[in-house]
Amino acid sequence: MEVLQAAVLGLSIFLLAQWGYAAPSRMQFYMHDNFNLSPRTVLRVAGSANSTAAFGAVMVIDDLLTEGPSPASQPVGRAQGTYMISALDGSSLLLTFTAVFSRGSENGSTISFHGADRFLLAEREIAVIGGTGKFRMARGFAVLNTTSNTNRATIVGFDVTLQV
Amino acid sequence: MEVLQAAVLGLSIFLLAQWGYAAPSRMQFYMHDNFNLSPRTVLRVAGSANSTAAFGAVMVIDDLLTEGPSPASQPVGRAQGTYMISALDGSSLLLTFTAVFSRGSENGSTISFHGADRFLLAEREIAVIGGTGKFRMARGFAVLNTTSNTNRATIVGFDVTLQV
Amino acid sequence: MEVLQAAVLGLSIFLLAQWGYAAPSRMQFYMHDNFNLSPRTVLRVAGSANSTAAFGAVMVIDDLLTEGPSPASQPVGRAQGTYMISALDGSSLLLTFTAVFSRGSENGSTISFHGADRFLLAEREIAVIGGTGKFRMARGFAVLNTTSNTNRATIVGFDVTLQV
Repeated sequence: MEVLQAAVLGLSIFLLAQWGYAAPSRMQFYMHDNFNLSPRTVLRVAGSANSTAAFGAVMVIDDLLTEGPSPASQPVGRAQGTYMISALDGSSLLLTFTAVFSRGSENGSTISFHGADRFLLAEREIAVIGGTGKFRMARGFAVLNTTSNTNRATIVGFDVTLQV
Repeated sequence: MEVLQAAVLGLSIFLLAQWGYAAPSRMQFYMHDNFNLSPRTVLRVAGSANSTAAFGAVMVIDDLLTEGPSPASQPVGRAQGTYMISALDGSSLLLTFTAVFSRGSENGSTISFHGADRFLLAEREIAVIGGTGKFRMARGFAVLNTTSNTNRATIVGFDVTLQV
Repeated sequence: MEVLQAAVLGLSIFLLAQWGYAAPSRMQFYMHDNFNLSPRTVLRVAGSANSTAAFGAVMVIDDLLTEGPSPASQPVGRAQGTYMISALDGSSLLLTFTAVFSRGSENGSTISFHGADRFLLAEREIAVIGGTGKFRMARGFAVLNTTSNTNRATIVGFDVTLQV
């Protein structure tokens, strides 16, 4: 059985090395979707009606991401991509964007997100669909909660769980 | 070798617990993309030509998903997102949407899909790119087949294989 | 301990079989995004300004993919989907497309890509977000570099690393 034991041990070590065990990691940031900035960081580019709130409206974003809920807190990157009003009653956004990080060791790394942001809920989830740089091969999800929504400026907290 | 055995066993149990073995699971549903409903659940929001069938046309959808092929069968959720005519000859749609489930224990959970729907083929595949709730960390694919296509109303069966 | 050994061995073999170890594989191809072709393979379908280079512009593509950097080299498939100008300063594109392969054993298989193409960088990365056919369950990333950019025709090399 010595050979068997060695084989099993080798196999297990191989598996560990291959899939590189790491506990799920967490990351928090806040997204600032503000229609009042100049230059504009969110543009309505398509839609069937002349409204940003109607089903079918499509926005392109290059939104600031910060460490804390205040837009004046430490920048961590930008959310670049799109969202559209994807529920008939206007209660959900289909988010599709890449978070391009700019801070410290994450500079230039990205995480891609996709999912239904049912923004009327206190908490809702979207999926992590991929990553680059430090986040290559990432899977995961993000729990979103709106921390502020005034005068066409919305701040959304992201609590991201990653399995890289 | 007793210590080695214990280490190997611990490692294996740890791996199992970590990656949570589950056999690939299957799910079926039907998508109803119907231009005739009121209110509209599919809108053409962009495109270069005044046609829903020409290359470049972009649609936003909040389409009904049901258990069976009949639109009157049990609802299971909504497909929220977009598709565009992505082949020059009009023979393929690039689907990008999140299925938001509403039934039973899946209520509020989602699966995100992305891929080329070559709808002239009897069977074609798109990718599962992520999930939330019950479907966190999901990978997989869906085999699509059109069960009905009449009068601007198309019914497409999804046979989804998931590795969560 | 014989039972324990057998259990551990069974478990390990089961894990290997389940996750099907394969070394990461590599794939190269070149994407031809050319505004000068007839019929057009890239269309600007939305945007706030009458420019293909301004933030918010949205393009739909059915771009040729080839084996080498020359557009006359062996075709390997098509890149079908969309990109948008996703940086305020116009320096990044959010790519979301499916590569539909047509060559040899890959015929009909697809890989879906998503990410920020910071095209001014010599090298930048986007994520693989899924696959079908031969590439079911794929994760990975692609390193992009621009090999030619003249007269509204851009050629971008993709060096793809896949973990299927």
